[in-house]
Amino acid sequence: MFSSTRRAAVAAIAALFIAGPVGAQAADPLPSWNAGPTKQAILSYVARVTRPGPDFVPPEERVAVFDNDGTLWSEQPLYNQFVFVLDRVKQMVAKDPTLRQKPAFAAVADGDMAAVAKLQEKDLLEMVAATQAGLTVEQHQALAAAWLKTARHPKFGKPYTALTYQPQLELLAYLRASGFKTWIVSGGEVQFMRAFTQAAYGVPPEQVIGTSLRMKFDPGDGKANLTFAPALGSLDDGPGKPENIALQIGRAPLVAVGNSDGDQQMLEYSAASTRPSLQILVHHDDAAREFAYDRASKMGRLDKALDEAARRGWTVVSIKNDWRTVFAAP
Amino acid sequence: MFSSTRRAAVAAIAALFIAGPVGAQAADPLPSWNAGPTKQAILSYVARVTRPGPDFVPPEERVAVFDNDGTLWSEQPLYNQFVFVLDRVKQMVAKDPTLRQKPAFAAVADGDMAAVAKLQEKDLLEMVAATQAGLTVEQHQALAAAWLKTARHPKFGKPYTALTYQPQLELLAYLRASGFKTWIVSGGEVQFMRAFTQAAYGVPPEQVIGTSLRMKFDPGDGKANLTFAPALGSLDDGPGKPENIALQIGRAPLVAVGNSDGDQQMLEYSAASTRPSLQILVHHDDAAREFAYDRASKMGRLDKALDEAARRGWTVVSIKNDWRTVFAAP
Repeated sequence: MFSSTRRAAVAAIAALFIAGPVGAQAADPLPSWNAGPTKQAILSYVARVTRPGPDFVPPEERVAVFDNDGTLWSEQPLYNQFVFVLDRVKQMVAKDPTLRQKPAFAAVADGDMAAVAKLQEKDLLEMVAATQAGLTVEQHQALAAAWLKTARHPKFGKPYTALTYQPQLELLAYLRASGFKTWIVSGGEVQFMRAFTQAAYGVPPEQVIGTSLRMKFDPGDGKANLTFAPALGSLDDGPGKPENIALQIGRAPLVAVGNSDGDQQMLEYSAASTRPSLQILVHHDDAAREFAYDRASKMGRLDKALDEAARRGWTVVSIKNDWRTVFAAP
Repeated sequence: MFSSTRRAAVAAIAALFIAGPVGAQAADPLPSWNAGPTKQAILSYVARVTRPGPDFVPPEERVAVFDNDGTLWSEQPLYNQFVFVLDRVKQMVAKDPTLRQKPAFAAVADGDMAAVAKLQEKDLLEMVAATQAGLTVEQHQALAAAWLKTARHPKFGKPYTALTYQPQLELLAYLRASGFKTWIVSGGEVQFMRAFTQAAYGVPPEQVIGTSLRMKFDPGDGKANLTFAPALGSLDDGPGKPENIALQIGRAPLVAVGNSDGDQQMLEYSAASTRPSLQILVHHDDAAREFAYDRASKMGRLDKALDEAARRGWTVVSIKNDWRTVFAAP
């Protein structure tokens, strides 16, 4: 106990000198957010719950949840994980042509993008199950990490992990510095996300909630083996988000950030908290710097939630107007 | 950022002075553990993975999981939560006598302990579902917290939360001071446990994994409502433990502590890690100070896991010999 306290003191003193002279004005925690009502809503909320007063919230109750696709990184023209799964399906069909018997698999293998565009959620979930079944978490994450290193976004030509949003990285860091525990709650498959969330967002694996497959435990012969089963465990989308938050976190989040109708219930759950809370919806309205889409989009459809945001006074982020910079610097 | 760094430095400096002069000998972190091979195995393992060397493990990978019933607090003569559920069933039958149509419910209402003793796991799960269905997490936790304040253990006459094991509280604190994140992974219902784990063990709600019911999300009219559904979500026992650890933590634990056959798979999962790991089984062999039971017990049966511990060199804790004190001081 003693020596770790001592190390912490030494580290903190060193940080003090690196951070600058005592009494210096605190820098803007959100430099990539333009001044205006959106930024002000965030700063005011955080001040209100962290400073002494009637709305003060104890640190252990400061829970912030972020959707991932379209909220922390780009999700157009296809969810990044969708592209990963398509690439994995191509590899699998190349190794085992009998998989072509499934029309969806054949379409993917042939690069029939018109057919791929028509795939439904159930097709994608079936592919997730087929490509992960039998793998351990570690094997699957190694495949995801390798893919993320080489894959490039079709519009920007960059790795997907280079297309995280700078303003959101600042928001995550600002919330953490204000005593919030930050979580990702996404429709993406949970173990795929865990391959990059620590490096990309500073969010450790145990604070990532996502869609999951069932698992199969085999005690083995002195060597336990835990692998994915080809069956959906939980779909972390829509009502699945508040349900999984209750299961894994055990309380309603006070800050909830999303960008689509699939996030609506998570924001509603947050808004129902007895504590002061903040709901944020990112509106992709910047075709010049990123993409512009909302009500009719297949990926990240923002229709009902946009109306509800207006009705309930949720904070809507206009990427065009509120974000000075969109993507994180390399 | 700056001001929080400064506050941390001030706190750390203050802690230094409180902790004593620089260079003082660190106190025994496990004073309630008797000297011997068990205590030595724990101290040696922690030193091995936290000091520079070939077996050093980065802090983010230091995950320790503890079963709850029989591992952190007493589980005899009945699991504490079992008693809670029986009390809730009695209340419900008193309010709604039609529930007597279920023989198990009638037996509980009549205090027919011979019949209660014959209840199976499925009966208990059905009662958990019936007593929680329709409640919110907060309502259920309030009932659990109120019950824990008034209920008394039949042998010791104390509140159940006064029957936590002092040596385990020290082990939890020692692991945390050594950079481990400590989790509870228990067959108990997860939201019941979250009513007391922070106060009793210093383990926050989001680091508690347990058996869970499904949930039902109702957007309500401007007020979202999330309640328990009367259906089992996941049974966190046996193979369910490693499966839920993978789902919620995302990696194999390096330290796994249990006391029954229901913990065996969690210990096997830990032992299969590529990192150095430590498996601990608590053996209740102290009828004078607590209880003595193992192979044939209905609650906390320790049969197969005891043999496997011998075969694989897992660390077996004898309460009689290894623990100087059993229960935490009030």
